[in-house]
Order: sequence, then structure tokens, then C-alpha cells
Amino acid sequence: MRQIPTSRADAVECDRADPLAARHGLFNLPDGIAYLVGHSLGPPPATAGARLNAAMQDWQSDLVRSWNSAGWIDLSERTGGQIAALIGAEPGEVIVADSVSVNLFKLAAAALPLARRYVLFVEEDEFPTDQYIAAGLAGVSGAEVRRLPSGGTFDALNAGGVYLKSAVNYRSAEVADIAAHEREAAAHGALILWDLSHATGVLDLALKADGARLAAGCTYKYLNGGPGAPAFVYAAHDIAGLLRTPLPGWMGHAAPFAFDGGYTPREGAARFASGTPPILSLAALSGALEAMDGAPLSALQAKARALSAMAIARVQAMGLEVLSPVEDAKRGGHVSVRMAEGYPVVQALAARGVMADFRAPDTVRFGFSPLFLRYAAVWDALDALADILASKSWDQPQFHARAKVT
Amino acid sequence: MRQIPTSRADAVECDRADPLAARHGLFNLPDGIAYLVGHSLGPPPATAGARLNAAMQDWQSDLVRSWNSAGWIDLSERTGGQIAALIGAEPGEVIVADSVSVNLFKLAAAALPLARRYVLFVEEDEFPTDQYIAAGLAGVSGAEVRRLPSGGTFDALNAGGVYLKSAVNYRSAEVADIAAHEREAAAHGALILWDLSHATGVLDLALKADGARLAAGCTYKYLNGGPGAPAFVYAAHDIAGLLRTPLPGWMGHAAPFAFDGGYTPREGAARFASGTPPILSLAALSGALEAMDGAPLSALQAKARALSAMAIARVQAMGLEVLSPVEDAKRGGHVSVRMAEGYPVVQALAARGVMADFRAPDTVRFGFSPLFLRYAAVWDALDALADILASKSWDQPQFHARAKVT
Repeated sequence: MRQIPTSRADAVECDRADPLAARHGLFNLPDGIAYLVGHSLGPPPATAGARLNAAMQDWQSDLVRSWNSAGWIDLSERTGGQIAALIGAEPGEVIVADSVSVNLFKLAAAALPLARRYVLFVEEDEFPTDQYIAAGLAGVSGAEVRRLPSGGTFDALNAGGVYLKSAVNYRSAEVADIAAHEREAAAHGALILWDLSHATGVLDLALKADGARLAAGCTYKYLNGGPGAPAFVYAAHDIAGLLRTPLPGWMGHAAPFAFDGGYTPREGAARFASGTPPILSLAALSGALEAMDGAPLSALQAKARALSAMAIARVQAMGLEVLSPVEDAKRGGHVSVRMAEGYPVVQALAARGVMADFRAPDTVRFGFSPLFLRYAAVWDALDALADILASKSWDQPQFHARAKVT
Repeated sequence: MRQIPTSRADAVECDRADPLAARHGLFNLPDGIAYLVGHSLGPPPATAGARLNAAMQDWQSDLVRSWNSAGWIDLSERTGGQIAALIGAEPGEVIVADSVSVNLFKLAAAALPLARRYVLFVEEDEFPTDQYIAAGLAGVSGAEVRRLPSGGTFDALNAGGVYLKSAVNYRSAEVADIAAHEREAAAHGALILWDLSHATGVLDLALKADGARLAAGCTYKYLNGGPGAPAFVYAAHDIAGLLRTPLPGWMGHAAPFAFDGGYTPREGAARFASGTPPILSLAALSGALEAMDGAPLSALQAKARALSAMAIARVQAMGLEVLSPVEDAKRGGHVSVRMAEGYPVVQALAARGVMADFRAPDTVRFGFSPLFLRYAAVWDALDALADILASKSWDQPQFHARAKVT
């Protein structure tokens, strides 16, 4: 058997050999659903619900005392520690807080005074949020924003500014070489702010080893933290102490209960904690991360690559154009495929229990979340796609009806 | 019977006549607890848990489709509508998002270009978060921060800057005259950003009628939204369209699914939505607000005043110094009392089921949340205080032991 299944029997064999196979049982996915949308919102592992219920019970029974008795007061930091293990960071280098948008803003604002040039750079097809936040920060700070062509960050690092850059492109799934970028940045007084939203949980990330200084990311995709689960900030120990957040809330204060008029930031990434975190959502996230405890990053990456490689081979055999890198090492956890009739195809797939993601005008994205997916189920989902395309069964009125999109 | 009970029989009579009495049954407070800390973290009404469970179930069963099927996509806006009714705002003038810290930052940054002078003003004993955020915004924007003496905002409005001001002081509970401040601000090109954290749910707020333009506030105190429940932004219709948020996340975009590189803000306060909101925490908040449905603001204010006036009379009779205004109209929902031995007294109260709040060095705060408290129970709690003081039973080693504070 090869690592990449080329038959259903292969796929079944891959499931048998899968070191992550038992994790599937931590999820309670609806029957008959092949969930290829884990790159958008991951499903809940049972541990997420358990921690959420416990937090609700703590609120009910121990009321305000739960800030101490249930450990809410340092839950952001402890959850940050869980994430540190998933991105190759050290304890104290990650804190959970706010949203990706807010965290990108905080980090970019804090980085600007430390870069050689007070300029923000962002690629023109970077995730829209990153572009908006760069513009928002420019508006309030007076920093200039320069747009770079797609993939143009590396060549522009010699300008010595602050660069917002996704580690995995949200459309193509193309992976950036973090280590190479950081070497170039270090040579030119540039600082890169990595957006890890599409990278965490599917790549064998080694932020510290790769020399990354600053990053933020969401937790509701491959980390399965829940809808709108709070995001994270990574700030390497060698730079964290130099960073001043523009959003100094009480949770980032070294003595949050002293009620000082002046602000003394906490050590490390914890200074990027801001206001009171949403404990219920945070508890669910912390529980969800327990489902990843001890899962080797290398195994997560290998499985995401194997599943997506299998899918690429099959959709190419269906005559479809793959928009993601076919070389494994250059691809994150999802695969984008061009389909002019993508919208009704995705509806037809859904009618058969296969959930995928349509992006206008003509792209279908399949997410290959390695924690809960099974090879055989993905194989069957691709069978369904082949059948829908071959029979043109997507061309029925009910599959063309438009709902509000997500 | 007077409105302010002067005997336990009076208190029982007040409970009988209380138009809010039935709301107590919406809460499931632990037996034997007099919860006078609702100004810190309100207890959960049953509706909060119900909505939270429903959101968890939606995540489990309908997965990413819940953004549409469960209405998550506009939950921030709908919850904002629930809060609008509690502060005297119109629909569309309130959005729920982020924390108070982040919302103060967004509003102050957006207000600065519209004020006559690009200067932030904050009183020197204003809530620390508000001071920190003013300093953080100054650091990134270059705006100057000027400290005002306690209560000095009104007299400084002629400088025409942006003023951060609590509607109810977090220590003394003193109420600011919003209408008078706004008249003065309008005359001088000043903009006031009201922090409503200690005001919402206990005052008969009429933001619109009082001419208020901008406000933010938390939802976990008298609104019982849950630990770290997301906060809100109020932006009056006459000014919202002129405001540009420095944190333009996708949820504040007029076409969030168009994935435009450029940013077109939504109409009204909704432009202050930023990243993806924490849906689980938000669902609990929305449920909690249902417990206030139809509760007249005037009744909430009247009951908070009656309870706190009763408490003031009784602690004065115990020889204690009251640090809050004794005049009802000048007082919010809590009462601060000076007690040199406040720490062990609060522990001794807790041992008898009375939860109150100690603030170093010598202040005890009692919160009088009108939605769930009963007059007779508060009367009994004050009996317990009187007994503890008279017997000096607070002076036992176990009441002096220090735990981590909240």
C-alpha cells in the first residue's frame, strides 16, 4: 500500500494504519455526513461540550468566585499553552484573546516602532481581514500601507517594514516558507506578522525553530474551538518584552487587581490579553484542544497531505482544474478546485451528505481536517462527486436556489 | 408602607408589591446565598443556559450551516437590539462585539477626527481600563491625553476634545448627568464616550433623549450575560455614518462575503462589529437578556434605589461611613462603604452566605441588582452584617487568610 490511497481498499487500509484514527471517536458527527468544511468551522469534539457545560455549571453554582475556583482568571494563558504546543512555540509565547482581526491590529501596531521602516505591507490577494486591518491601523497611526503583488512578500522584505502574511493562503492553500522569510526579514530589519488561521492544526509548524517572531490565528477551523472561538497571539520571547500593545486592557496588566492608573504590561505574550475574555467560548475552545493532546504535528500534517493528495488525484481524473499546489510540501489542509457550476454542485453534494464550500465565482474548497476525517469516508465523498458530475445530477432547479451564503 | 423598607415586615411587603418579583424565579441561585455581587458578575437566568445549550446543539448538529440556520450571522445585531431597549436607544444604534476595552478604543479612535480638538480627556480616578485605553490609543495615534481631576469632565468640555466618562463611577456609584454633559459638549464641539458598564440594567437610561452620541459597556454585571460576555457599542444614528472604525473586521463590512480588498462599512452601529464574535458566549448573553424582556427601566431603577437606600440607612445605623451618594438620583446600583476591616468582614459575610465585594484598601461594595434580589433577603443580609460587626466575629484567623483576589 502506498501512503496515498488509490482505491477504496487502500483507503480502508490507511484508516487501519492511521495513528490518529482513534480521535474520530472523540467527535460525534451527524450520521451520514462527510464534513469537508473543517477549514471553515470544525465540528465539536465531546471535550468541548464537556468543558462548556462545566463552565456553565461553575457560573451557576460558584458565581463570581469561579474566577478563582474554576481557574477562569488564567484560562487565556493556559489555553495559550495548549496552542503553543501546536505551533512549535514555548510556554508563555502564546495567549488566547479577542479575534484574529483585533490580534493582527495589536501585533502590527506593536511591531511598527520596532521595524526599520514605519510601513505596513500586505499582498493584494491576502485574506481580506488582513488587508482591512492594515488599512484601519494606517488610518489611526499614519503608517503607510503598500500593496504587494500576490506572493510578493519575500522580495519586498528588504524594505524593512511590517508584513502581514498568511502562512497558508486561504484560497489556494499554498504554504509560505516561514524560515526563509524570517531569514530575509532578519537581514533587513523587517518584521513579519504571520496569520496562521489556515495553518494551525494541519501543518507541522515550528515557529520558534523557524525564527518567527509574531503571529496570530483563529481557533475555529482545524482546532475545532467553536463558532467565533477566541483567537491567539504568538510573540517570541526575544521580542515580546519590547512590544507595547495599543489595546492595554486589564487582563494584560501585570497587576490586574491593583487598579493602577498606570499600565505595567505582563511578561511575554500575555501582555496582549486585553479585556475580559468570553469565558464560555474560551472554555469550549480549551476543551476542544484536549482532543489534540499528544497528536504529533507530523502525523496531522502527513494525514492532511495524504487526504488532499488523494482528492487531487481523483478530481484531476474527473477532468477538474486544481487551483492548489499539487506538491505536498507546498499545500496546507484544503484543496481548491475550479468548477464553473460549483454552486449547484456543492448543493448536490450536500444533498448526499457531503459538505463542501463554494466561493464565488467558480471555486469549490474541500477541507481535509486530519483529526476527525477517515480516508474511506473521504473516498466515498469523492465517489459522490464523480457521480454527480458524470450524471449531471447537479443540474436540477433545487440545487440552483440561492440561500444566504456563509 | 414607605417605598424604603425600615423593618423586615416592610421588606416582605415590598417584595409582595414588587413588579419585578416574578423575575427572581428566572434565576436558580444556590440555596442560602444573598448575592450582592451582581455588579461584578451577574448570576445566570435559566434562559442563558437554554440559549447556550441550543447554540452548542446547533454547532453539533448543523455545523457550519448554523451561521444561517441558527441565525448566528446576525446574532450580534439582534443582541444589540435587545440592549438598545435597555439604554434608550433606537434599533440599529447598538451592536454587540468584543470587550469594553476594544470598544472604547474603536469609538475613541473614530471620534477623534470629529471632535474640535484631537485630544483625549479622562478623569484621574476613572475606571483603570478607560485610562489604559486612552493611553494606548494615544500611543498609536499621537493624540495627547489630558488627565482631569475627579469629576472634572463637565468643566473641561469647552476644550472640545474626546472624553471618556463612566455614567456611574465604579467606586462611588455616583451618576453623571448625561443630558447636561451632552448639552455642554454640543456647545463646544466635544464628544463624550460614555462607559455604561455600571449603569446598564440599574438606571432608567435614555441615551437618545439625553443627546448621547457614543457609548460602550459591559454585559456581565447587571445584564447577567455571563463571564466575559461580549460588550456593546452605541453610536447614535446622527453620527454613526461619519465614524470610521480603526478595527474594520469582516463582520462590520457591508458585504462580508464578497471578500473585497476594500472596506465598505455597514450602516449604523453595526460598522463597529469587527472579527467573528464568540457565538457561545454571545448566545448565553442573548438568552440572559430575555430575562429582562419587558421589565420597565423605571421599575429597575426604582428597585435598585430602594434596595440601596435601605442598605444605606442600615449601615449608617451601624456607624459605618457610606462612600456613595445618599441622594437616590445621584446613585447607581451599588453602595460603597468604608470598613478598615473590610477584608475579614467580607469573608465572615461569605461564611454566612452573603456575598459582597472587597476593594483594597478599605472599601466594601454591595451590589443591588434589581432583577433577582428580594427585599427581605437583602434585609436579612444586612442583619448578618450587623451581627458580624456587633459580635466582632470577623476577627477570626480564617477570615484574615488571603486568597487570590478577583
